[in-house]
Amino acid sequence: MEEGAALRSWRGASSLPWYVAGSQLLGVASVVITGVWMGHFRGGYAWDGSSQEFNVHPLCMVLAMIFLYGDAIMVYRVFRNEPKRSVKILHGVLHFLVLFISIIGIVAVFQYHDANNIPHMYSLHSWCGMLTFVLFIAQWLLGFCFFLFPWTTTWLRSLYLPLHVFFGLSLFGLAVATCLLGIMEKLLFAISDTYSAYAPEGILANTLGIILLAYGVLVGYVVTRDEFKRPPHPEEEALSVHFKTLTEGGAVSP
Amino acid sequence: MEEGAALRSWRGASSLPWYVAGSQLLGVASVVITGVWMGHFRGGYAWDGSSQEFNVHPLCMVLAMIFLYGDAIMVYRVFRNEPKRSVKILHGVLHFLVLFISIIGIVAVFQYHDANNIPHMYSLHSWCGMLTFVLFIAQWLLGFCFFLFPWTTTWLRSLYLPLHVFFGLSLFGLAVATCLLGIMEKLLFAISDTYSAYAPEGILANTLGIILLAYGVLVGYVVTRDEFKRPPHPEEEALSVHFKTLTEGGAVSP
Repeated sequence: MEEGAALRSWRGASSLPWYVAGSQLLGVASVVITGVWMGHFRGGYAWDGSSQEFNVHPLCMVLAMIFLYGDAIMVYRVFRNEPKRSVKILHGVLHFLVLFISIIGIVAVFQYHDANNIPHMYSLHSWCGMLTFVLFIAQWLLGFCFFLFPWTTTWLRSLYLPLHVFFGLSLFGLAVATCLLGIMEKLLFAISDTYSAYAPEGILANTLGIILLAYGVLVGYVVTRDEFKRPPHPEEEALSVHFKTLTEGGAVSP
Repeated sequence: MEEGAALRSWRGASSLPWYVAGSQLLGVASVVITGVWMGHFRGGYAWDGSSQEFNVHPLCMVLAMIFLYGDAIMVYRVFRNEPKRSVKILHGVLHFLVLFISIIGIVAVFQYHDANNIPHMYSLHSWCGMLTFVLFIAQWLLGFCFFLFPWTTTWLRSLYLPLHVFFGLSLFGLAVATCLLGIMEKLLFAISDTYSAYAPEGILANTLGIILLAYGVLVGYVVTRDEFKRPPHPEEEALSVHFKTLTEGGAVSP
């Protein structure tokens, strides 16, 4: 890298911690506000088919599909100088956690519907949510097969990587949109009489929506800025080629 | 460009027309379905403060902030081999059209609220919508000053371009999310009794939401894929440097 370019890259990347700190502030705020909304305004939590079981749903989904999903996406930027294999595993494990907590959240809402004779899957929120969830699982499985199994060739990986990044970010955006729809649906069910009178619960939930949006945009910014990208690590690349030569027994192509 | 890279780029870009055709199909479908929803299920259109004036709002917003906005973003890919100045002007004019039609749509909903004593700006949909609209105007003005006024230096332009692209795409995503919120809000006001019984109007409007999402993802894909990007045009770059030399009277820097 030429000296000027290296300096520019360093200068650009030096602002990364601020963006990451900002994102964490927004992410934690979104989880806390959801917790307060459901805990204080909607009667708290339970696992008995009541509306308190429903309350587990928003908390799990915001914690998993927003906060942890965003963090899982950002690990390649936050740990841009750590060994790639460790970061990959962290990325996969965080996504597994997202999947696990999401399942709890989805079971909660289905059980609540069943216990109260509410039909499933009729609203736009549920359609978007199920679409996001199914595609998320597909994306996770594809990511696992392409990037964590040793038998996938470097060529296949480099072909799939931009698609993995694009669809990962798109699904994250879809998750944010689905949460906004969920907020809207819950407010129009729960406080339809006072929402238009600027009820505190409505203002709180609207604010949550704006924070989710801001978190989504900030994560997108951190992930797509060129100067925050992982710098090339020559030792790693040499090691990877060496590893491929050993395992595949092939010649190193130029 | 080396021969292999040129071939790869040509191969990649050869699928562009299919993606663009697909996006136009989705874009037109979203406008038509909104028109049918408001025209057939919600009683048609008027400009008299009635709910028929409200119906102008979704149609204008989907036409402008989704279909035309998406097309305005894609012009740099669709006309990737046309002169850059013409494409820039088309990009600006399309965005002006988006602004103009959006204003009609926003006036429609504010007049409807006023005529029916409905408070403004209390719902998450309205918050997201106003945020999108204000930021859209700011983005348009900044874009105009940076890229269409001749006095902005190439250095400033190249510094602002990635931000313009990122925030343009983010605002487009925000517009899609706002439309989904609008669909959800309208359905829960208009057919709250039959929505959960899978009423045809609900299915139609949910389908519209999914089509809007698909359009958004497709536009994002076309704009961010490397192989669809505008190839470098050496004549243009020489011309631009020549033009700058003439207008600024400065020396050409290497």
